[in-house]
Amino acid sequence: MAVEHNEAVVLRAIKDLVIEPIPVPDLKDNEVLLQMGSVGICGSDIMYWQRGGNSRFRLEAPMIIGHEGSGTVVKVGSKVKTLKIGDRVAIEPGTPCRRCHQCKQGAYNLCPDITFCATPPDHGNICRYYKHAEDFCFKLPDHVTLDEGALMEPLSVAIYACRRGEVTLGSKLLICGAGPVGMLYMMAGKVAGASQVLITDIDDNRLEMAKSCGANHTINVNGRDKLEVASEIEALMGGQPEVTIECSSVDYSYDLAINATRQGGCLVAVGRPSGRTLLPLDVALRKQVDIKGIFRYVNCYPAALEMLSTGKINVKSLITHHFTFNETLRAFETAISRDAKAVKVIIHCDQ
Amino acid sequence: MAVEHNEAVVLRAIKDLVIEPIPVPDLKDNEVLLQMGSVGICGSDIMYWQRGGNSRFRLEAPMIIGHEGSGTVVKVGSKVKTLKIGDRVAIEPGTPCRRCHQCKQGAYNLCPDITFCATPPDHGNICRYYKHAEDFCFKLPDHVTLDEGALMEPLSVAIYACRRGEVTLGSKLLICGAGPVGMLYMMAGKVAGASQVLITDIDDNRLEMAKSCGANHTINVNGRDKLEVASEIEALMGGQPEVTIECSSVDYSYDLAINATRQGGCLVAVGRPSGRTLLPLDVALRKQVDIKGIFRYVNCYPAALEMLSTGKINVKSLITHHFTFNETLRAFETAISRDAKAVKVIIHCDQ
Amino acid sequence: MAVEHNEAVVLRAIKDLVIEPIPVPDLKDNEVLLQMGSVGICGSDIMYWQRGGNSRFRLEAPMIIGHEGSGTVVKVGSKVKTLKIGDRVAIEPGTPCRRCHQCKQGAYNLCPDITFCATPPDHGNICRYYKHAEDFCFKLPDHVTLDEGALMEPLSVAIYACRRGEVTLGSKLLICGAGPVGMLYMMAGKVAGASQVLITDIDDNRLEMAKSCGANHTINVNGRDKLEVASEIEALMGGQPEVTIECSSVDYSYDLAINATRQGGCLVAVGRPSGRTLLPLDVALRKQVDIKGIFRYVNCYPAALEMLSTGKINVKSLITHHFTFNETLRAFETAISRDAKAVKVIIHCDQ
Amino acid sequence: MAVEHNEAVVLRAIKDLVIEPIPVPDLKDNEVLLQMGSVGICGSDIMYWQRGGNSRFRLEAPMIIGHEGSGTVVKVGSKVKTLKIGDRVAIEPGTPCRRCHQCKQGAYNLCPDITFCATPPDHGNICRYYKHAEDFCFKLPDHVTLDEGALMEPLSVAIYACRRGEVTLGSKLLICGAGPVGMLYMMAGKVAGASQVLITDIDDNRLEMAKSCGANHTINVNGRDKLEVASEIEALMGGQPEVTIECSSVDYSYDLAINATRQGGCLVAVGRPSGRTLLPLDVALRKQVDIKGIFRYVNCYPAALEMLSTGKINVKSLITHHFTFNETLRAFETAISRDAKAVKVIIHCDQ
Repeated sequence: MAVEHNEAVVLRAIKDLVIEPIPVPDLKDNEVLLQMGSVGICGSDIMYWQRGGNSRFRLEAPMIIGHEGSGTVVKVGSKVKTLKIGDRVAIEPGTPCRRCHQCKQGAYNLCPDITFCATPPDHGNICRYYKHAEDFCFKLPDHVTLDEGALMEPLSVAIYACRRGEVTLGSKLLICGAGPVGMLYMMAGKVAGASQVLITDIDDNRLEMAKSCGANHTINVNGRDKLEVASEIEALMGGQPEVTIECSSVDYSYDLAINATRQGGCLVAVGRPSGRTLLPLDVALRKQVDIKGIFRYVNCYPAALEMLSTGKINVKSLITHHFTFNETLRAFETAISRDAKAVKVIIHCDQ
Repeated sequence: MAVEHNEAVVLRAIKDLVIEPIPVPDLKDNEVLLQMGSVGICGSDIMYWQRGGNSRFRLEAPMIIGHEGSGTVVKVGSKVKTLKIGDRVAIEPGTPCRRCHQCKQGAYNLCPDITFCATPPDHGNICRYYKHAEDFCFKLPDHVTLDEGALMEPLSVAIYACRRGEVTLGSKLLICGAGPVGMLYMMAGKVAGASQVLITDIDDNRLEMAKSCGANHTINVNGRDKLEVASEIEALMGGQPEVTIECSSVDYSYDLAINATRQGGCLVAVGRPSGRTLLPLDVALRKQVDIKGIFRYVNCYPAALEMLSTGKINVKSLITHHFTFNETLRAFETAISRDAKAVKVIIHCDQ
Repeated sequence: MAVEHNEAVVLRAIKDLVIEPIPVPDLKDNEVLLQMGSVGICGSDIMYWQRGGNSRFRLEAPMIIGHEGSGTVVKVGSKVKTLKIGDRVAIEPGTPCRRCHQCKQGAYNLCPDITFCATPPDHGNICRYYKHAEDFCFKLPDHVTLDEGALMEPLSVAIYACRRGEVTLGSKLLICGAGPVGMLYMMAGKVAGASQVLITDIDDNRLEMAKSCGANHTINVNGRDKLEVASEIEALMGGQPEVTIECSSVDYSYDLAINATRQGGCLVAVGRPSGRTLLPLDVALRKQVDIKGIFRYVNCYPAALEMLSTGKINVKSLITHHFTFNETLRAFETAISRDAKAVKVIIHCDQ
Repeated sequence: MAVEHNEAVVLRAIKDLVIEPIPVPDLKDNEVLLQMGSVGICGSDIMYWQRGGNSRFRLEAPMIIGHEGSGTVVKVGSKVKTLKIGDRVAIEPGTPCRRCHQCKQGAYNLCPDITFCATPPDHGNICRYYKHAEDFCFKLPDHVTLDEGALMEPLSVAIYACRRGEVTLGSKLLICGAGPVGMLYMMAGKVAGASQVLITDIDDNRLEMAKSCGANHTINVNGRDKLEVASEIEALMGGQPEVTIECSSVDYSYDLAINATRQGGCLVAVGRPSGRTLLPLDVALRKQVDIKGIFRYVNCYPAALEMLSTGKINVKSLITHHFTFNETLRAFETAISRDAKAVKVIIHCDQ
């Protein structure tokens, strides 16, 4: 198949998102060329678009946006063995150096030389054709859709959080923050064996959705004393949670999390407060509540694929909106619109 | 409540099981007196009854039989705080010394001074009244039955096997042996995150039952070459299993398990071959397939109770027969009868 | 041996330390009566004496002080098996409930019902005769002195910190704070396999001592930029440390520790800042530097005893002053005197 | 520097070792060309030479021998960043695919596509010039010799065994087999924190050497009952060892190891019995003595280098003989001569 024309959604500067022609990339031996299928919009994409940066990364040059993608193989490099033309794949968006200490340890997410889609200065994959390392493309079985393949990215974050927190059979799991990401933590936590999940938020609508997605308990913490809430959590769950996943990024939740988690338990910190954070560290230390961050994920795509292909996790319900490639700007606007109540917005690069 | 009369099912010698009066036990400060409810019959009970021994333990004096029990609190010791008269509890049948190195390490199952129901010389609990340490009684919520409480014992073994094997979200799990115990490993493994379970046996009926209980794949290994079976397992699961639980006790299965398990994986050895075993140890070593045994279980009752009270595991389907206390001998005969096709037989000590 | 008279050093209120007669304690079955030998003065003893409190604990009634002790068995309870009259023992000062979830998990340091010497409301052991649970007394071989036995307590803290931080063969270890406690962390870290230890402080004398005790590198961080120091640490050690133990309790050190520690490493937080702490949490999270506190220690006395009896760690050099029982007040005054330059002060209760 | 001539020691067939000219290899971007320095002779080299095979590997074509090597960089590939001409390096002899599941997990020793020096069909490095991946070359500081660099290979095996066995501060370590390899396990074990090491063998001379190298205890097990020896081990060490490293490959030792190791401990199986092994598996299972093999090592060179550069381990004492490149055949003959009493024989490829 001769691929001659290519185009991409380029973020040229803050709030300046355009479609531009780009070259069809050349393949190395271990790479495959993909016709992009579905790409989901992530909160970090929106941060770059609206603010020109995310965490410590700054947009300093035009960058193709998007990193939650899937596609179809249209060409293979000379040493590719496991994929062939026509295979549909989910794309793990980071490609590490494979040679540093972190890579050799199996912690490639911490590789200082990793290239990662749509993290400056690396381009993303909302485009027509995109090349990627064979071993970071995961072949989808026939019954798993390209949309589901795209959602393997946020699902991998959730799986990694549960792994780091050592959620296991019988764990009680507290999740601070009932956004779409919180829903994925809950799904992953339940499959990892959590017997009960309690979710906190300050928005009743979101808590309602959490409940309908399977949360055993919910608490609206708006205006409430954190120690009182910690006691209520213990009462509702019949014991303090061994694991808390914090994904709201607010100081209140960190404080609640440290007080609510069981002695000897773990606080997985996903929500990344900017700058310095005021923590009740003395409480965490004497309770031996370990504080663990997560940076992306590592070796989680195989588990995510098992979850989707065996039906143990259903991510389709999180997809609320669909757009064609040419409608990408509208897709982004929908993602931030309060009225749209979007959870996950998908751009179909092949439409 | 004044408890004045007591009686027990005593195994006096091989195949000599009788009901005899016994004293009502005195309570220590931290003990509770229980009116026994349901007690399940286990393979080890049958071994003592039929052969007078099990593994390294020999029946050398009359012993009350039974260790998979539940009951209702009728009296509490002076320091008991967490239980009160009327509470229904599952009984974890081992009470460790609490003072040795193993106990202090959190490995009380390895305590050399543990007393364990119906393991010579310790008495079991198929009786009318039985006393037990408060902290090894687990209060059942109203919606969990005494029958389910009794089944928490074999379920704890299954949970422990999954813990030792580190079954986690996305694991492929191979189970060698499709007996009732194998069913529990499957249930626990699935809740612990296993995406696929493959069960082997030499009996098509049992494999059929495994399938109906949720096994993703089954193989009848009767007369088959182990390397060929290992290849078939890999093909069916889309990769080699990371964890294998061996519960058939036959050399063939050990051999198969070592060959079928993924490099770097784990073989949890539950089936205990008697005497010395001929193993392809060289294969296990170069593949780094770790071989881990389990001895009973430790700290698994809380997780088992979470599984039953939240409905994540349903053990009721394993109960096929019920008997009153006075029918205990018939219960044992039923448990070994081929015609009865018994899975789990329950004796109701309160009937 | 008839023990008839007893007396103790009682902290009646802030700065009110007196010797008073107390009863000879009665023994339970599993307890031994000890003639107290050596007791070291710890920073927490000084906090109670000078300020009437330490961390969340307040002195609310007169309390016998002291918890780093050793002694000689003079009487044994009826069920004591492993000790006999005349045995010299180190005393692990906490006795847990043995029955709660934490105790059964092997985390008895987190037991909510633990009694711990000289932590209100529990009495300590600067007295003539003291009783203790048999299994928390560790018999000293002939060549280990009672003074060394007393120092097993702070050594256990150091061992626990290294365990929590997973210091292992080849680790680079950063220690923030070169006090006497920091010296013990260094000793334990080196025995646990650390190839290099770098210690920071703001006092050149202490750094000099650290160097003479075996520190590979030292840095005086007084007035220096933390990122610049982090770079210097990396340069000196030939790579960032995998483990940092913070024992200075100052915010600067926490900040330095998070910045200096290798991605994927661990910060063991021993220094307990009071109240809320301002942390660069975002940096810790994206680097995946886990923050782990320690509360006392658990199952460390056996290892501490192995270290002393095999000579792998020599704690004697830390003892700078000796006092008799009747000189206890002078001992405390010496411990806080700048001129005395005391490291570890020992009170000989048997003198 | 223009490198024009090259030659290598080629094993053409069993007992047919010759020096032959070979091409100077071409470099890829991430490779360096090394002038070989020191190469040690390993037991596996001798197996190929004397028997044409080792474990499951067969010599099927002429193969350059040797894999315990060090050398000096004489040329660097275009993307090499961390090494420059003149750097002296230790060579980790395996180069994995970097792309398979095992590599990405940090278990590159289990990579099915690894190339490994002198393991058929891959060539070794007893030659004049040899090329290797930059990231598997470890730069030696000035004070570490090329001989020591060569010995980092067997030292890495020892470090890996201790890691797998979780030898830590205070461990009691039993080593079965007092050969040169056993000495390295002892050295690594002691640095990893083992407080006591007991070594068994059937040769008094070897046990004498073990004692002089630092073994705390030795036992000649020749003709002795294994249970009696297990009891003696417990008595000598003041408790059963938590970790046993088996490196004698005889069934007796496996049996002894399982019986002597503490409940809940670990048997690291390095000695690889050929074919099937008769094990007291029932004992291992009920004691929960985990059986773990090791295949080569993974991520151990950095720790080995730290050990040598900081002087925590001294491997020089193990080197008993030196030969020039042209004397290689004599070097091999010396290695197997009983009279020579060789421990480690070094070939100097640059002489």
